[in-house]
Amino acid sequence: MTQHHRAGPLFTDLYELTMTAGYFAHRVLDTATFSLYIRDAYSTRNFFVAAGLEQVLDELAGFRFSDEEIDYLKTTGRFSADFLFFLKQLRFSGDVYAMPEGTVFFANEPVLEVTAPIIEAQLLETFLLNTVGFQTMIASKAARCIHAAAGRPLIDFSLRRTQGQDAGLNVARSTFIAGFTATSNVLAGKTYGIPVSGTMAHSYVGAFDGEKDAFLAYSETFPEQCIFLIDTYDTLEGAKNAVAVANEMKKKGHTLIGVRLDSGDTVSLSQGVRRILDDAGFYDVKIFASSGFDEFKIAKVLSDGARIDAFGVGTKVGVSSDAPFVDVVYKMVHFKDREVRKLSPGKVTLAGEKQVFRNKKTNGYFVEDIIGVRDESILGSEPLLEKVMENGIVLRAHPSLEEIRKRFALNFSSLDEKYKSISDVVVYPVKLSHGLEKLQ
Amino acid sequence: MTQHHRAGPLFTDLYELTMTAGYFAHRVLDTATFSLYIRDAYSTRNFFVAAGLEQVLDELAGFRFSDEEIDYLKTTGRFSADFLFFLKQLRFSGDVYAMPEGTVFFANEPVLEVTAPIIEAQLLETFLLNTVGFQTMIASKAARCIHAAAGRPLIDFSLRRTQGQDAGLNVARSTFIAGFTATSNVLAGKTYGIPVSGTMAHSYVGAFDGEKDAFLAYSETFPEQCIFLIDTYDTLEGAKNAVAVANEMKKKGHTLIGVRLDSGDTVSLSQGVRRILDDAGFYDVKIFASSGFDEFKIAKVLSDGARIDAFGVGTKVGVSSDAPFVDVVYKMVHFKDREVRKLSPGKVTLAGEKQVFRNKKTNGYFVEDIIGVRDESILGSEPLLEKVMENGIVLRAHPSLEEIRKRFALNFSSLDEKYKSISDVVVYPVKLSHGLEKLQ
Repeated sequence: MTQHHRAGPLFTDLYELTMTAGYFAHRVLDTATFSLYIRDAYSTRNFFVAAGLEQVLDELAGFRFSDEEIDYLKTTGRFSADFLFFLKQLRFSGDVYAMPEGTVFFANEPVLEVTAPIIEAQLLETFLLNTVGFQTMIASKAARCIHAAAGRPLIDFSLRRTQGQDAGLNVARSTFIAGFTATSNVLAGKTYGIPVSGTMAHSYVGAFDGEKDAFLAYSETFPEQCIFLIDTYDTLEGAKNAVAVANEMKKKGHTLIGVRLDSGDTVSLSQGVRRILDDAGFYDVKIFASSGFDEFKIAKVLSDGARIDAFGVGTKVGVSSDAPFVDVVYKMVHFKDREVRKLSPGKVTLAGEKQVFRNKKTNGYFVEDIIGVRDESILGSEPLLEKVMENGIVLRAHPSLEEIRKRFALNFSSLDEKYKSISDVVVYPVKLSHGLEKLQ
Repeated sequence: MTQHHRAGPLFTDLYELTMTAGYFAHRVLDTATFSLYIRDAYSTRNFFVAAGLEQVLDELAGFRFSDEEIDYLKTTGRFSADFLFFLKQLRFSGDVYAMPEGTVFFANEPVLEVTAPIIEAQLLETFLLNTVGFQTMIASKAARCIHAAAGRPLIDFSLRRTQGQDAGLNVARSTFIAGFTATSNVLAGKTYGIPVSGTMAHSYVGAFDGEKDAFLAYSETFPEQCIFLIDTYDTLEGAKNAVAVANEMKKKGHTLIGVRLDSGDTVSLSQGVRRILDDAGFYDVKIFASSGFDEFKIAKVLSDGARIDAFGVGTKVGVSSDAPFVDVVYKMVHFKDREVRKLSPGKVTLAGEKQVFRNKKTNGYFVEDIIGVRDESILGSEPLLEKVMENGIVLRAHPSLEEIRKRFALNFSSLDEKYKSISDVVVYPVKLSHGLEKLQ
């Protein structure tokens, strides 16, 4: 299923085009390798979850300038007719090495490398940073929530406050990769086949004469899919109304799935609601909670004794609010036949085409990663970057979302708990190989 | 120019569809009014800049379910054939009142109200919140930067780290509304006619044998559009290389526009670079700075004496990093012939269809706003919400981006300086009219 909205070659910073016009004019057409990685970010994230590769490969495979796009570039008055004619013919003809989506990785490790004629490799920079950076950021944030929820299902509720439309789609996909069970986002359901979830808002309750009427009406329309929102007026009264309607439903052979809290003190209200449900014999009716949840609030309410069975997780995950961007970069590391480093203060780049080798225990547990030279082989370790594109051709079918979810789940279960801390910086060991050190 | 990517009716939370299926089943088809506003947010923003209306109106005017969309809904197994048949026929037939884009407004003021049959009004919720919320958030952040830069040009450099593709487009548009002069985003240039800007990255400099060679090569390709990036190796040496090449350019009748710093200590480096340029007689060569700028860093380096003529403003504005979401809500305030309030703890909604009245001094300066009842008239004040759509028809052509920019500039110049503080909470007076108070 490849239904990503194509970004197109104008989804780029102008300087990618002016630089490449310069290369073209001076016939700088040699092959370059660029490495995409996240710069040291341990103040907020101990690990990352690779995401975005499917969209990257679709875009690269279809990379070309339309007549309309060339016409626009002409209107800027900046580009020669020869360069525009060159762009018109351009396709992506390079190689891509990348970590598969769902791979757990760490700061400074290349997650994707592009080897191509310098103009092709350069023109992709903005798109690659945007796509891999954002989706990886969200998958990483979602994984932290999964850890905090300790097995309770999480549902993506973020669509209303994601930063735009395809952010909404990609948040649904990236959180699903990290183990969320569903999304409220109907378009993501259609586009990616992700299960969709949702019942009612406060306005629904308000549209009927009373809360009980609203619940009753809903149970008539969706007798097997009822989760009543019980905090429109008073949460505990709402729980009692839910019980009353659940009893009506029972008579007709239907079962209330759950109730949802969306305001107030989650801990005490959830305890009160649990008592009301249990006292009425509805032990299996679940309590859902939403409103402002992220890994921090989930961990807090659970440790304070909240009786919540599942969380709707919205805005704060959908924008990664505690760290709304990652310092993802795409740096030239090899050009013609020499290695390239950048030495600007605080922004050193490791030269050379690379591979990331992961050492594991026999039970699969991650021990350490070694960033090495691409051709190296390190005995007993697993190379994480796979060749996914050669000469512009994608070498394998996209893995399904289920396969990606499984990869993540296996990776995550192999990561020592200490690195999953949502509050402490715990640095996973990432070394450089002797070969890579010698290259610098 | 209306080239927004259509979100489509599935860009919605599932509960909008389940609720409306419930309304349909119970023939709850009466007219409702929903009010869109930002809940109290004074901890981070003293004011907001309205944006997103153009996209809203385009979407509403074209609102319809395609066969493919209906087919997907069918596969969810949740909706009756009657309801899906109803959806297939649905168009937006309601009225919209809204503040024009570029209007400065404040927390709790309705910026948009929709009056329509409840199903139509409800189905739009997710899209409206996402669209108006995000674009308004970015325009508001950008306005703070404009204030901090005190007249220096700002250029949007955010595309590589915006949260997705249309976020990138809308950041370019929203920052332009707030007074940015250009964007690096080529697609935004094509889509919205925004001036594009950009020259070279470090990789360009690295692709030549030396920095001076890179500058020379660039000056041959773009003799009249040179801004050299001078920090790839050593910034002050880079400035000297820029001077050397500027002298070469001069001989051929060309003029170096500027140099750009992208790392290191902006204050001392900009002073050092300014000296080197001035000593060589290049008083008119501008110094651009980029890397990590937002309103806070702009204000800091300027107050510390940086000699910067223009800023490239990227990531932190593109994701509104200090406040990456706004608490924007869309609440039912009127239904059938009654007013509607919501009383959940901490989430009170003002009932009734509203208007926002702005009192001004004779010189145009804003004095106070009064949230009133829509039909009220308050002598000498300016109503901010305009009727922009009636019976599903847009009532006026979209204003041009230039007109929107002018509206913002006039609004912003009429706002007392104290409310523009980027560090202090200063609350602009917003009152309720007697009429509105009586309604509660």
